[in-house]
Amino acid sequence: MYNIDLPRLKSTLLELSQIGFNEEDHGMYRQGFTDDDMKARHWLLDMARKEGFIADMDGAGNVWFGLGELDKPAVIIGSHLDTVPAGGIFDGALGVIAGLEVLRVIKDNNIQLDFPLRVVGTAEEEGRFGGMFGAQSITGKLNMDWLLSARDADGMYLTDAMKNQGLNPMDALEVAWPQDRIKNFFELHIEQGPVLEKMDIPIGIVDGISGVFKWIVHLKGKADHAGTAPMDMRSDAFMGLADFAHEITRIIDENGTDKTRITVGKVQLKPGYPHTVPGEAIFTIVGRDMSEDIMRDLADVCDKTLNSIARRHRLRFEREEASWLPPHYCTDSMIELMEQKAQDRGWPFLRMPSGAGHDVQFFTEVTEAGLIFIPSVNGVSHAPDEWSHWHHVEKGANLLLDCVLDKVSKD
Amino acid sequence: MYNIDLPRLKSTLLELSQIGFNEEDHGMYRQGFTDDDMKARHWLLDMARKEGFIADMDGAGNVWFGLGELDKPAVIIGSHLDTVPAGGIFDGALGVIAGLEVLRVIKDNNIQLDFPLRVVGTAEEEGRFGGMFGAQSITGKLNMDWLLSARDADGMYLTDAMKNQGLNPMDALEVAWPQDRIKNFFELHIEQGPVLEKMDIPIGIVDGISGVFKWIVHLKGKADHAGTAPMDMRSDAFMGLADFAHEITRIIDENGTDKTRITVGKVQLKPGYPHTVPGEAIFTIVGRDMSEDIMRDLADVCDKTLNSIARRHRLRFEREEASWLPPHYCTDSMIELMEQKAQDRGWPFLRMPSGAGHDVQFFTEVTEAGLIFIPSVNGVSHAPDEWSHWHHVEKGANLLLDCVLDKVSKD
Repeated sequence: MYNIDLPRLKSTLLELSQIGFNEEDHGMYRQGFTDDDMKARHWLLDMARKEGFIADMDGAGNVWFGLGELDKPAVIIGSHLDTVPAGGIFDGALGVIAGLEVLRVIKDNNIQLDFPLRVVGTAEEEGRFGGMFGAQSITGKLNMDWLLSARDADGMYLTDAMKNQGLNPMDALEVAWPQDRIKNFFELHIEQGPVLEKMDIPIGIVDGISGVFKWIVHLKGKADHAGTAPMDMRSDAFMGLADFAHEITRIIDENGTDKTRITVGKVQLKPGYPHTVPGEAIFTIVGRDMSEDIMRDLADVCDKTLNSIARRHRLRFEREEASWLPPHYCTDSMIELMEQKAQDRGWPFLRMPSGAGHDVQFFTEVTEAGLIFIPSVNGVSHAPDEWSHWHHVEKGANLLLDCVLDKVSKD
Repeated sequence: MYNIDLPRLKSTLLELSQIGFNEEDHGMYRQGFTDDDMKARHWLLDMARKEGFIADMDGAGNVWFGLGELDKPAVIIGSHLDTVPAGGIFDGALGVIAGLEVLRVIKDNNIQLDFPLRVVGTAEEEGRFGGMFGAQSITGKLNMDWLLSARDADGMYLTDAMKNQGLNPMDALEVAWPQDRIKNFFELHIEQGPVLEKMDIPIGIVDGISGVFKWIVHLKGKADHAGTAPMDMRSDAFMGLADFAHEITRIIDENGTDKTRITVGKVQLKPGYPHTVPGEAIFTIVGRDMSEDIMRDLADVCDKTLNSIARRHRLRFEREEASWLPPHYCTDSMIELMEQKAQDRGWPFLRMPSGAGHDVQFFTEVTEAGLIFIPSVNGVSHAPDEWSHWHHVEKGANLLLDCVLDKVSKD
């Protein structure tokens, strides 16, 4: 049995985390196609080449490095190198550097590969431009319309951001791998949630990425003076929203599963004055589940509930479905392999869904794909105090190593 | 029986409403101590003088005009000349112009006054600087600390706004009337609420101004990823707020009266992203009732409810009492006079509280004071589409005339 070298992995990850580090808030700032994002990519290419690996950047900005000629379908380890603004050092980077560590173990031990192995640090996974650009480009899920129209929150076009970094956006349409050239896809990632830590389990084996729908809801009533309008003569849009929020538990109990989440994360009241009955409430509903059928049920019931509440409060109810993304399922054989390898190591593990999106979701559609989680301290991610314990990092990387070795050496 | 001249009243009110009128949104913009506010005051002074009334502006910007020497306590008719931004043409102005119309009727008919009569167009009632400046100055409720520190939402000092209009702020401290120099105070105002219209009653006789408390509440939980945080591991600050809002009906049913109002008008969620469980909810609670004891009960129960909800949702609950204003009661004899005079005219009337503040509230503490309401179309006020039917204006002004004539001629 081989093992990764934790001090070496740790040192590389910490070196990477100096690129884009902000002294003030201690957060990482490597948003896709920014200078620091590209700096990290070139730093990694240089390091991989120095260590003797084949290394290159593709036309979408994905960084590739590995061992073995691509004369057979490749086993790919991947995650992303970009971060959200003020993000943490593990999100994405862990999976890429763990992939490098797997390569080092193979090289150090002269392990013979029957299949080529590639590690990819994907581009722009965090959605600065609204997608998972790198993983979409590799799996052939990019289209020109989107490529040309995607913009970030400041209005900058993706194409301009790429050109600023010396990339030709059109090249991104050429980087897709034929499905039959990818044998397996592995990702190691932090959970970014509280479940593993709360249950004291070091390894999560992800069975899929939950589907998600996002609604923008308008409840329109009548703005009244909060003193002169008696309670029973109001059309208070906020009270409609509050009544809906109060029903969320029932909606999930009756129609959902333990994997369902329904969240109201953003609320705007108009006019939004303390002494005025809210005339309009604009808010988001984000619903998630592992079953698209259940997602449809949840959406239907949210719709019914909001309609009935709107009638009760004399409100007009309108909703816009901003997005509907079906669930993605990891490959059963990959899940079983991961469970077997964790069992062989004697480590407890939990089969669990991922509530957040990951690069792996695009690979589930083209190849055998699997995702390993390690615990996040306090469930925190996308924040400077995102952390994972190094002994969990070690277990996760070793499980990745075990699984990858299984796949590169046989079918 | 005398009657006001509606076409004359209407024409004067419409002339006034050209000052500060905004062509784009059709709203009135005569916020206290702006150029248009002062323009309206000087326009009114000129008109009153031209018509032969004693007229002057006091050191607080209040415009006074009337008949009779102040050798005996005066009967005062008052309301405000300033407006909110994008306000309507009736709010405040109606009461002042109706006062002018009462004077005209007295003059035209050579009615002999046993007591002097004054009409006042008060300054800055709408609270640009946080108070009811004019009424406070007249009733001796101004203090130097507040005068020097009051600022508007843009940070401009009241003292600077006054100086810009050629007023000496210190003069405002000198305009208070000795209590024994005010015999009665009358105000005519639009209801600014839906009650009279819904009940099809032309006259409201106000028994008091409800007390009001304003809280700024913080519920602090934990911002989590809306996908990775299971529903039962969240500390969702918004769900705490929603649960509280849901309890408002019960809180009023159990502890309030039909005059109670509890309103959540302003809500801010942090971070306020659709895909993030709200880590903090900051919101206002404005509570009102005609009894200060009931206000205290309501506040206690809101506090208990929020504490219990905070525990249930693992939130921290903090509140700041931004204001606590006790109720003001109109004088019984004034209420009875108004009811008698309405009955004499054969008009239905409703004894009702005022949920909004009015100039009269400061006069209730120093003299016999009363307030007449007329219906607001759709209950709308503080908006360009504020409206009251002219036949209601006529009734309100005639009732004011009847009551004032009663008080200026005897007692």
